Parts: sequence; C-alpha cells; structure tokens
Amino acid sequence: MSYQAPVKDMLFCMKELAGLEEVAKIPGFEDAGVETAQAVLDECARFNQEVLAPLNWEGDRNPGSWNDGRVTTAPGFKEAFKQFAEAGWQGLQHPTEFGGQGLPKTIGAACGEILNSANLSFALCPLLTDGAVEALLTAGSPEQKQLYIPKMLSGQWTGTMNLTEPQAGSDLALVRTRAVPQGDGTYRISGQKIFITYGEHDMAENIIHLVLARTPDAPEGVKGISLFIVPKFLVDADGSLGKRNDVYCASIEHKLGIKASPTAVLVYGDDKGEVGPGAIGYLVGQENRGLEYMFIMMNAARFAVGVQGIAVAERAYQKAVQYAKERIQSRPVDGSLPAAAPIIHHPDVRRMLMTMRALTEGCRAMALVAAAAYDAAHHHPDEQVRKQNQAFYEFMVPLVKGYSTEMSLEVTSLGVQVHGGMGFIEETGAAQYYRDARILPIYEGTTAIQANDLVGRKTARDGGQVAKAIAARIAETEAQLARRDSAAARAMHQRLQAAREAFVQVVDFVAGSIKTAPNAVFAGSVPYLMLAGNLVAGWQMARALMVAEDKAAAGEDVAYMQAKVATARFYAEHVLSRVPGIRDSILAGHESVTALAPEAF
Amino acid sequence: MSYQAPVKDMLFCMKELAGLEEVAKIPGFEDAGVETAQAVLDECARFNQEVLAPLNWEGDRNPGSWNDGRVTTAPGFKEAFKQFAEAGWQGLQHPTEFGGQGLPKTIGAACGEILNSANLSFALCPLLTDGAVEALLTAGSPEQKQLYIPKMLSGQWTGTMNLTEPQAGSDLALVRTRAVPQGDGTYRISGQKIFITYGEHDMAENIIHLVLARTPDAPEGVKGISLFIVPKFLVDADGSLGKRNDVYCASIEHKLGIKASPTAVLVYGDDKGEVGPGAIGYLVGQENRGLEYMFIMMNAARFAVGVQGIAVAERAYQKAVQYAKERIQSRPVDGSLPAAAPIIHHPDVRRMLMTMRALTEGCRAMALVAAAAYDAAHHHPDEQVRKQNQAFYEFMVPLVKGYSTEMSLEVTSLGVQVHGGMGFIEETGAAQYYRDARILPIYEGTTAIQANDLVGRKTARDGGQVAKAIAARIAETEAQLARRDSAAARAMHQRLQAAREAFVQVVDFVAGSIKTAPNAVFAGSVPYLMLAGNLVAGWQMARALMVAEDKAAAGEDVAYMQAKVATARFYAEHVLSRVPGIRDSILAGHESVTALAPEAF
Repeated sequence: MSYQAPVKDMLFCMKELAGLEEVAKIPGFEDAGVETAQAVLDECARFNQEVLAPLNWEGDRNPGSWNDGRVTTAPGFKEAFKQFAEAGWQGLQHPTEFGGQGLPKTIGAACGEILNSANLSFALCPLLTDGAVEALLTAGSPEQKQLYIPKMLSGQWTGTMNLTEPQAGSDLALVRTRAVPQGDGTYRISGQKIFITYGEHDMAENIIHLVLARTPDAPEGVKGISLFIVPKFLVDADGSLGKRNDVYCASIEHKLGIKASPTAVLVYGDDKGEVGPGAIGYLVGQENRGLEYMFIMMNAARFAVGVQGIAVAERAYQKAVQYAKERIQSRPVDGSLPAAAPIIHHPDVRRMLMTMRALTEGCRAMALVAAAAYDAAHHHPDEQVRKQNQAFYEFMVPLVKGYSTEMSLEVTSLGVQVHGGMGFIEETGAAQYYRDARILPIYEGTTAIQANDLVGRKTARDGGQVAKAIAARIAETEAQLARRDSAAARAMHQRLQAAREAFVQVVDFVAGSIKTAPNAVFAGSVPYLMLAGNLVAGWQMARALMVAEDKAAAGEDVAYMQAKVATARFYAEHVLSRVPGIRDSILAGHESVTALAPEAF
Repeated sequence: MSYQAPVKDMLFCMKELAGLEEVAKIPGFEDAGVETAQAVLDECARFNQEVLAPLNWEGDRNPGSWNDGRVTTAPGFKEAFKQFAEAGWQGLQHPTEFGGQGLPKTIGAACGEILNSANLSFALCPLLTDGAVEALLTAGSPEQKQLYIPKMLSGQWTGTMNLTEPQAGSDLALVRTRAVPQGDGTYRISGQKIFITYGEHDMAENIIHLVLARTPDAPEGVKGISLFIVPKFLVDADGSLGKRNDVYCASIEHKLGIKASPTAVLVYGDDKGEVGPGAIGYLVGQENRGLEYMFIMMNAARFAVGVQGIAVAERAYQKAVQYAKERIQSRPVDGSLPAAAPIIHHPDVRRMLMTMRALTEGCRAMALVAAAAYDAAHHHPDEQVRKQNQAFYEFMVPLVKGYSTEMSLEVTSLGVQVHGGMGFIEETGAAQYYRDARILPIYEGTTAIQANDLVGRKTARDGGQVAKAIAARIAETEAQLARRDSAAARAMHQRLQAAREAFVQVVDFVAGSIKTAPNAVFAGSVPYLMLAGNLVAGWQMARALMVAEDKAAAGEDVAYMQAKVATARFYAEHVLSRVPGIRDSILAGHESVTALAPEAF
C-alpha cells in the first residue's frame, strides 16, 4: 500500500467541525457543498495517489541538478506538473474570472494536504505560485492581474517569493536589494536573494518572481521596502515571451530534506540576461508598501506550510501503520497470542501510532476549521460575521503554522521509531519524512516568528480579547461534554478544562506583562504557541468526539465514529495533558530562560 | 571554533556528584583520583579535538564504500584509528593484565563522551570492540582471553556484535543462524546477520565477530542460542593470522546518519573464504547460554549508547551557541540594544540553548553517577556496597540509554532550529547531528525495549524496591534544598518534589498492576522511562545546584558555579515540570492507548 488520502476524515472535519454547509451558503460558494467537496477530494486523491506519490521517494534519491544557471528537476516532475496544471489544480482556490475554480479554502486546504502528502517537494511549486497570485490579486494593477494571473493558474508560468538575503532572514529590515526607477515606469533590480524555492526550474515556460527591494530614496528599515514583479522572461502585452531578464540562478542548495524542490540562490543585475545590466522589474502597488503586500502572500503561505506539517505527518503515520501490521516480532505482553505477533499488538507501538494519529487528526481539524473562517472572513455578506471570522482566522494562522509543523517533527520521528532499525535505512522511506519535515518549522517564519506574531499582534494588541473569546467558546464545548456520561467525554472534559484554564492564565500573563516585562513574555512565546495549538486542536477533537458518539449511537458509520472517539480520548489523555506543565514553565520559569548572560555561554 | 570538550563540567560531575574520590579508594583504582582524571581528560580532549573532530563532517559527505566484499572507510579514518590505538585509548577501561589501562568507568565514560562528540561514526568501532572484550572477559576461556583480548586492546584487531537477522531484531528468540559442531571442538557457522556495525572495514588487520547462533539440537527460543567467536581471519595459537574465514560482507547500508560507520550485511557459510563452506567458529562459554553472555556485552553497549546521546547533544549545543553568537538578526524585544543583535540576545533563542544545555548537563551527570556505581559494584571490597551499587546501576542502564538518547533527538532538533534556514543546509553541519542522533534510541535495544527492561526486571521484579530506594534518596536531596532560601533552590525543591511524588505513584502502579493489567502497564512503559530519566537527571542537577551555590558563595570558580545554578534552575522549571503531565498520561491514559483495535488502524 502506498499513500491513501484520508478523504473520509477530511469530509468529517469539513462537515461536522468546519461547517461546510454554512460555507456553501456564502454567495459564490453555492456549488461548494458536501457533494462537490466529495467529488473534488476523490479526484484529488486519485490524481495524487497515482501520479505524484510514486515520484516522492525517487525525487529524494535523484533530486534536481544545476548546470550553468539551469535547473533540471527530478525525474517525472516536469511531466507531472503538466498533468497537474492541465487538470486545473493550480486554480482551485482562485477566482473564476482569471480561470480559477473559485472553490473555498475549506476544500482547497484539504486538497493541499493531499498534494503535500503525496509529494512535499513537488507541492512547493504550486504553493509558492499560490502565494504570488494572492499578492497580485491584492496589490497588482488590473493590467498586471490580467497579464500574469491566468497563465499562472493554467500552470504555463509559476511564481516565487523573493524575501531572504544572506544578511536578512527573519529580519526583513535588513533587505539590501536595490530597485532603481528608469523613468519609463520600470525599475532595474540588483542584488542577491537566497533560499528561493523553485527559483529556477524546467517545469514551466516562465517564472514570475515577486521580489522585495529598496528604491534609492526609500527610508531605512521595513518601511522602505517595495514589491516588484521580475519575470524570468519579459512578457509582451499579449502575454508572449520576450527577452531573458537579468536574473540568474547561481546555485541550488544541498539540503537535509525536500531535496527534489530546487532552492535557488538568485542573482539580479549581473548582466547575465538579454536586457543589459539590471533585471527589469515592475512595481506592485505603491512604493514602500512591499512588506504589507508580502505579508498577504506570507499569510497564505504560512497557513499552507501548516498544512504541509499535517500532510507529512499523515504520510508518516500511514507508513508506520503499514509496517506495524506487517513486521512480526515478539509475543504480546498480555499473552493473548501464542507466538511472535505483528508489532501493532505491542502496547508501545500502539502508543506511538495513536500519538501520530491523534496529533495529525487534531491539527487537520484545526486547519479546516481555520480555513472555513477564512472563507467567511473574505466572502460572507455580513460584515460583522466577516470581522469575527477574520479575527479568529488571524489568531489561528500562527497556530496552524507553528503547532502543526512542530507536531510534524514529533510524528515523523515516531514514524522512524516504529520502524526500528529499518527506519534508519533510507530505502525504507520513513527517514525521508523525518528529513523533509524539519524545514517546516523554519521556513515562512520560524516557530519563534509565529510565536512573536501570536504574542504581539494576536494577543497583546487587543489585550487578549480574541484569545478569551476562543476560550469562552471552548468553555461552551466543556459544558456540552459535561452533559455526557461516557468515559471518553469525561476524560476529555477534565483535560480540556484544565488546558483551557491554563491558556487563560497564560493569556493574562502575556497581555498583562508585555510592556513591563517583554523578556519574560517572549521567553515563553513558543511554549505559549505550543500550548494554544495543543488546546485548539484538542478542542476540535472534543467537538469531534461528541459528534462521533452521537453518530455511532445512531448506527452511522460505526467503526469510523468509534475510532474517532478513541482517538479524541487519546488526544485528551496524552496530548492535552501536556498543557499544565507548559503553563508552569511559562508562568514560573521565565526568569531562568535569560538568567545566564550571553557571554556566559 | 570547532568542538571543545567540556572537561570542566565533566570533572565537576565526577568530583562533586559521582564521588570520584570514593572511587579512587577502591583497590586497583588508587591512581584514578582527580589528578589522573584531569590529565586523562585533557589528553583525551586534545586528541579528539585535533584528530577526530575534523574528520566528522567529511566522513558524512564521503562515507566508506563497499566493493566486492571489501569496505574502504571514510578518508582519514584508517590513519586516525592507528593513532587512537597507539595512544592506548581502546584499553582505557580494560584490565591491565591484557594490556589495558584499568581505569574506572567513571573516567572511561567521560572519555567516551568526548570521543563520540568528536566523531560518532568513528567512535562506534571502539564501542563495539569494548562490548566484544567485555563478553570475552566474562565468558571466554583463559586461552581465548589471551589470544584475542590483547590484540583487540592494542587496536590490531577490532570486535563486533552479531545479533540481528532480518526476521530477528528486538526478538532474539527468532535467531536462525546455525552452528554445527565438527567434533574437533570447532563449529561451522552459516546464516545471515544484518545491521553489523563495522562488520567489515579496513582499519585493522582482523575482525573478531561474536555471533549468536543455534546448535542443531538446541531448544527453541532464547534458551537455545549460543555465542561464538568467528574471526575474519583464523588465528594461529601464536596469534598470527591464517586463512580467510567464510564470512562475507554482502553489502553496507545507505543510512540516514552515522554514515561513515559501515553497517554490514554479513553472510556466513557461503564458501567465500579459504576454509570451505561454513565459517569456523569457537564456542564462548557453554552452549545455549549465549544470550546471557550477549547481555553482558549489550549492557556495556547500552550504557555507551546513552553516552553517545549526551555526546551528540553536547556537540549540537556547542554548534548552536557558536551560531547564535555570530548571527545578527533583529532588535532585542526589550529594546536593550539599538540595532539588530546577535540572535543569542533573543529570549526564544536563549530558551532553546538553555533547553539543550540543561538536558545535556543533566544526562551527563546521571551517566557519570551511574558509571561510579558500576565501578563500586564491580570492584568495591565490601559485598554489601557492591550489591547496592549493582542494583542502582542496573536501574540506571535503561535510563541512561533510553532517556539520554531520546533527549538527544530534542537537542539536535533544537540545534537545527537555532540555525534557522541555515540549519537545513547540509554544509552548515547542524543537520548531521540531527540525522546521526536518530539511530541512538533504536540500536542496542529501542527505547521500548529499554522501557520493558525498566518495567519488568528493574521495577516489577522486586516490587519497586530499588525504585523506591532511589526515591528516598531524592527525598533527602529535597530536604537539603528545603533548608536553603535561594530562589533557585526553592524552584528546584518544588519541581523535584512534584516529580519524585509522581515517580512513586507510577512505580506503585507498575509494580501493582503488571500481573493483572500488563497492557495498561506497558502502554505507559516508555512514558515511565522518560519520567524516571527526567527525574534522576533532575536530581543530579539539584545536587549540582547546591554544590555550586556553596562554591560560588565561597568564591570558587564563580562564573562556572553561577552558570550551573542557572542551568539547574532552568532544568527544574522547564524539564522537571514536564513530569506531572507524563504521570497523568500513564495513570489515567492507559486505556486509550489500546482502545483502537489493530484492525481499526
């Protein structure tokens, strides 16, 4: 068995937790109900299982190569991208007016998970194109939108995000790439960008780079950064390709994982094109507002990277289950079988598999609930509904990105462990997920950057109001749990309540101390993020538990529903139970984080 | 800066926590006091920093290769091994009568950490030789000892442990390799062994394989396994080399990490030597007692693998500190610096570095305390002292192995995270530690196997007596802490007490339920191991805290002592604080571990 998309679990989350029926009431999404979702996910599953999943391991062994500025991608990638594009997957979530399918993010996020489970390295190309399209949709001129977006959605062209420079990673204030206006509305760009995912490749005719740079008279810091379109090949007004622009791929990186995705060093303005020195660029929106636009693109990308965490966790989980069912070793400790048994019969193997399963399902539920909030925030006719959902979604982005990717490290590591010695042998494939996952808490903003966002803009700025509103909704779920008398509901109630109370204590600490004791608050920023992500994912598991209990009692899909109850209870007892300890380390442990002076290390 | 051995911290642990002065009162160890330890560690540091550390990264890039049964090791390894052997490092802990230096394990363990920090792949060769020597010392005949041990200690020959077969990993009952007696005292061995570390290489003249196999009339299961010496080249009575034996290296593995250590598939009895079909082997000890002897060798190796965890954690920590001091990015959140600062000024980076530091120091202290118990258990003149120390040491082996290696995953992962995007680039080197560490919780018995040992033989068998005795000693430490009024001592007292109480509850559960509810107990076996390791390492940090407070107050090495206090407090607040949550998951969460039936996955 290779990868099988968890379509049933996705549909459960979408229907029962994310409220897909409500999303389908939003104007424009009328056709995006459960039936559509089922059809799209089935087709997505088929395509990815058949076309992309089989290329994943081969791409790791035999990743792309660089030669004199050109990158040849891994075997099969070019052909697969053609199929991917022709089937319309790139346009899934984008407006129909530019050739997209205009589906809600609630469905798009699930498709994103499937794509990334099948092939994380491949999926990065459409992920970055999505981000570039988002930025153009928000800040591009009508002409720019018409010129670039349709060809990006059709897969003829792809997009990139050019932020990082050697001295400017998390801190974009340090960006030095220059953009000099030419008087004709164009700019000449020069500088070096690093870590550019799919910055060069052979899968599409053209690459539309979105590049952060400074104009000559721009102010210092983040308020002097502008955003530019820099196509690899210049584009005529009719969309046909012109001269090779002055952007050159100097090398690609030798990485721990996601090896089949070329990570480029791009040099702008070294006179290596056909346009003379300086890459020709076109301003997006207004000068000096580049960071603001880039954040739009980054927010989309951050959510998508969170989904990558869920995706690689799901794939690692499936592989571990398969191995645990096949590998025969040792008699069960309870003597229930007379001889050596498949290792899934051993309690510790089950503990590992349940941990992997519970974390993955919890994060999936959280991401899909967040996606539905995005849809409502952007498309609901009622402004108040839009506003509430926007606030909720914004709070969720650092959790989906930070918590789901950190949990993917735990899950992929357990995946190796379930395989024992075979997990360390590359041919087995479990190690690839462990390596691939390791980038996820780093790119598109490290977990610490997500945590800064959670602490600063999402919690302290409104005095913890949005956070407390979420806590109040969790308390409602607790009240519903309290009216049930199953062991699972009781266990969930106990752990959810303890975790929610811990969360509120931490929110009070963060909102109350940020000005007087910033170091104390930021010493606990990542633990706060982990606590909040753990809680919110657990909250969704609690909601799932109640739905599943009711459906099982009604005889609906009993095996699946009972498994959901068991998994939710496991989450409560083994994952939510971590929360009070994290709270203690945040509230009581902040002094010791910075007690040792930098010089003393 | 490359690797710098933490000699000062090692000496502190040896003197103040492990009681090196007491060890040096044991007959035979009179010369092994602090002065000797300092001299040996300094020389060990010099050798490893200069010779082996520089080969580590190159070995990862350019590991050994296999060609027609022969293995060429990584560049520089052969020459380095010659120097290693000539300097006498292989014989460090072994008896002087065979050419060893007869130093206590207390010193040997620290040297082992340095060696493994410098080069984990290289260090595996002497590690396995140590295990083989231990087995021969225990069960070999006087002639076998004389014939093999001196040349293994001099580094002319190396040793291996041949346990695993494709169908027999953790479960040695499934071993199928055959050993047929030839009537002349020798046996002919045939079968296939996998995962044999340094099973073939070019660093020494001969390789002494210790092989588990079954004689034709042996009983089924683990009681029918015997141990054999199978030299790569037969050895004449005078020690000179004879014919090539019938053991053939069919391939070496392509691994996630420790790439420069060849992991061999060995085929015995395929008529590829000069002795006809069947490798010639010599029985060690008595027939059918092989597993017992192998356990001696495995216990030594398990402790040593625990030390590997500490070693790779220390190396990852040093690399992360170095990067955090150099990399400039973003202004400090407290506004204490006017511009972008080295990232070590950011609280979350400090949190990561402190976590790495505290875990590493805690495990180091635990391992050295265990090593001193081993020395007393094996060499103390008083039988009662030997017995007590033996019981303590045996309890510690699964903790040193299991907890130190699991913590090394956390530390090496944080090491990558501190580096941000650079951590994902292989040339940086941080990723190598993340990959290398991943084998440690797997080989020489997975964490689950260690946990089974802890639950079954170390806790349930004596009704939790040894565990409770350790808890009582921890309570004494708490009483000492309670008499201090520093914030650090108070914090430690609170967390240590909570953790010790949780430990006792779990021990009662394990000892009380193992017969009536084995699945419930084993569902929490690994969490119990993690809880116990966390506690015992934290206990050592508590003892260190008090010593360091007193010494700092007395003006002795104040900076080091203050750093120790800060690190111990961090351990209390951020690591010991995890324990109650683990307790809850064990005591309240065992049902949900196995609630989902194997078929439901």
